[in-house]
Amino acid sequence: MTTSPESLPSAVAPAAEPQEREFSLPVLTFLAFIVGCVAALGAIIFKFLIAFISNLTNYGIFSFELNPNAYGPESPWGPFVILVPILGGLVVVFLVRTFAPEAKGHGVPEVMYAIYHNDGNVRGIVAVVKSLASALSIGTGASVGREGPIIQIGSSFGSTFARYLGMTRSQKITLLAAGAGAGIAATFNTPLGGVLFAVEVLLPEVSTRTFLPVVAATATSTYISRLVLGVESAFVVPVAALPQIETVNIPELVVAAAVGAAMGVAAWAFVRVLEFCEDYFEEMPINPYLQNVIGMGIVGLMGYGFLQWTGHYEVMSVGYATIQSVLNGDKTVFFVLMALFFGKLLATSISLGAGASGGIFSPSLFMGATLGGAVGVLGMMVFPNANLDVPTFAVIGMGAMVGGATSAAMTAIVMIFEMTRDYGIIVPLVLAVALAVGVRRALVSSDIYTIKLRNR
Amino acid sequence: MTTSPESLPSAVAPAAEPQEREFSLPVLTFLAFIVGCVAALGAIIFKFLIAFISNLTNYGIFSFELNPNAYGPESPWGPFVILVPILGGLVVVFLVRTFAPEAKGHGVPEVMYAIYHNDGNVRGIVAVVKSLASALSIGTGASVGREGPIIQIGSSFGSTFARYLGMTRSQKITLLAAGAGAGIAATFNTPLGGVLFAVEVLLPEVSTRTFLPVVAATATSTYISRLVLGVESAFVVPVAALPQIETVNIPELVVAAAVGAAMGVAAWAFVRVLEFCEDYFEEMPINPYLQNVIGMGIVGLMGYGFLQWTGHYEVMSVGYATIQSVLNGDKTVFFVLMALFFGKLLATSISLGAGASGGIFSPSLFMGATLGGAVGVLGMMVFPNANLDVPTFAVIGMGAMVGGATSAAMTAIVMIFEMTRDYGIIVPLVLAVALAVGVRRALVSSDIYTIKLRNR
Repeated sequence: MTTSPESLPSAVAPAAEPQEREFSLPVLTFLAFIVGCVAALGAIIFKFLIAFISNLTNYGIFSFELNPNAYGPESPWGPFVILVPILGGLVVVFLVRTFAPEAKGHGVPEVMYAIYHNDGNVRGIVAVVKSLASALSIGTGASVGREGPIIQIGSSFGSTFARYLGMTRSQKITLLAAGAGAGIAATFNTPLGGVLFAVEVLLPEVSTRTFLPVVAATATSTYISRLVLGVESAFVVPVAALPQIETVNIPELVVAAAVGAAMGVAAWAFVRVLEFCEDYFEEMPINPYLQNVIGMGIVGLMGYGFLQWTGHYEVMSVGYATIQSVLNGDKTVFFVLMALFFGKLLATSISLGAGASGGIFSPSLFMGATLGGAVGVLGMMVFPNANLDVPTFAVIGMGAMVGGATSAAMTAIVMIFEMTRDYGIIVPLVLAVALAVGVRRALVSSDIYTIKLRNR
Repeated sequence: MTTSPESLPSAVAPAAEPQEREFSLPVLTFLAFIVGCVAALGAIIFKFLIAFISNLTNYGIFSFELNPNAYGPESPWGPFVILVPILGGLVVVFLVRTFAPEAKGHGVPEVMYAIYHNDGNVRGIVAVVKSLASALSIGTGASVGREGPIIQIGSSFGSTFARYLGMTRSQKITLLAAGAGAGIAATFNTPLGGVLFAVEVLLPEVSTRTFLPVVAATATSTYISRLVLGVESAFVVPVAALPQIETVNIPELVVAAAVGAAMGVAAWAFVRVLEFCEDYFEEMPINPYLQNVIGMGIVGLMGYGFLQWTGHYEVMSVGYATIQSVLNGDKTVFFVLMALFFGKLLATSISLGAGASGGIFSPSLFMGATLGGAVGVLGMMVFPNANLDVPTFAVIGMGAMVGGATSAAMTAIVMIFEMTRDYGIIVPLVLAVALAVGVRRALVSSDIYTIKLRNR
């Protein structure tokens, strides 16, 4: 109701009427159910698109089969694999510049901007361009994640559908948030995390009128994605299956607090380094294609460097395989874990600065798992008899890094639980997340989402 | 640091000065840690006090041993057991009327009133009187729960401690919420539920400055209570241990939606019947002691009636044993489940109307488990081959009833998960809770907490 009637037709042609319609809650909930179905399909298509592009560009094979949690084999291109992210990046830059400039970057700030400054309007073309661009970025090895894109894609579905029906601003934002939550839930099999993300990050106000549609969309998309992709949690934590021996492990709590504090600093570094890279590339006196060649060339070199050292590309693409390897307890050398952390911090910031399209959530998980594991290694030296292990602190680090970087503390806690199904560490996890948010906010008031809005 | 430095010495002198002090976040967090310790001790003492009173008044033995999840034996008093809640109630009425009128009722509305209309001030005497009065009510068989009292007790600790230190209003409310969350977490072993309750129901605004202290208190109290009371979840759901066979069970989802809708109606009925009983008893032209004799006499008769029928007192006291029996799959007769639901609805409303001191959360769990189970029985008749079971819908009903009655949807979902550790049903649970909140709100805008505030 706050917009002028003239602004409506400009959005999409079919919504020609100047009037806005207020739907009843049952109808809105049913519409959200449809958004959930579409968002789930979007998430599934997006996932297979990434797999297809990854297989084609890295191995020259046509296949939709890809297990991102397992390390892939070495590419047959040898050192020329460095060209893959460069060439992929050039197509991404072309797509984004030509069709939808708002598809650049990691996605969530653009959605937040649309909610707070553009009446909840996210263009329909964004869903298409973002899917293609992000699948290309991720598939060719840019160090970015799938959640930012799927949030933007889901938002685009919800917002476009609402605009098509001539909805009021507040109901449009509700369907937008429903689409975003549904996208996350379908991608990570985290129904509660999807709801909480919509509630904590996107919705300006939470009530039955907003909550019920979001839940309908999220539950629907979870079911559809489970049907196609399976019920397994995103990660498996073998140590979590062991029974808890002690009720209270004080050294564990102390090390978890240290992980939380370290993640607060790491989140601050991530916000600042990403901001620096985005500004630095933008101010380069060369055209965006050349900027991208430089940036993605560096990322490719880093990946190839890690291949020579650890046998895997590690910091390239979503990085789930590295995370799973830390959670399996296969990575326990302090120096390696720290190198992975710093490598990912740089690779992600450079990728996004150079124009890649993809999210910061998976990179945050990667940084959290590696730095959390590294702090865990130190903790095991300080408390050698306390029955500590690296994977536990990697999980705690994942939650703390996501919470610290995004400020969405409850979403981080619940999503990490849902991704790992490790309830045994809930208390140290909650504590570490709260500390990480506190430390990061003491160092920089903006988080990884809002820093981009502040600079507009 | 916005206050004048002169206000510092005032800390020790019990809040006589008009100046208020603003503490730094680390100091506030440390103070919340202390509140968490005290709240945990309060919860533990409260639990043992209930056990002691219950053993003494029902069986004439001196013992702190009581497993509320198992049915107790028949009282040796025979039919005279009806006198136990009456005599206990008389002492409760005396305590409340003499020392702290705000300790009457189910606790949370009083805390909300203190936050929004009384600058976050909850008197210290409330903690003592509420502990004694509620332990007496619950121990002698009034149909009320432990969570309302422990919220009020924890709030009283936090608020009194903050007042003693001369804190500002907003920091006082933060410590109050920290005490309440810590009390819940310690009572039910639900760390995340405690945090969410404070965030969703109590805190007027959520930020690092409020979140971190709440988390510190809640984590601390969880640890202390686990140390003393054990790490077990509040309830055990045997069917939850079975592996999930199907990814999507559409009949399960349909029945869950029916459970959600039924719980919305049930929550409406609970809000209205409780309101009616509270008004009705208050307007009786007799003194409060006589009111109590009538009310608790009815509750005692209902308990004795159930003893004759099912062999257990069922609707009296917290009712965990009945809930656990439904979750074990021992209660599968539609008529019995419905009788338990209506019995509890009446027993709780009459208990609170007649002046008992105790919460509505455990009764909500009871009503949710029984009515949810009853709907499940009907669902199994409609879908005989869908592999459904009663305990699953009992758990879903518990969450939906708590969410529907309190409006705190996320708290309900997370607490029910933490109390049962049954993640397999998270999607139907989320859906049912959202539906229950929606249906209840369509029928009555106030929830079980706010209806009392509206009538002030």
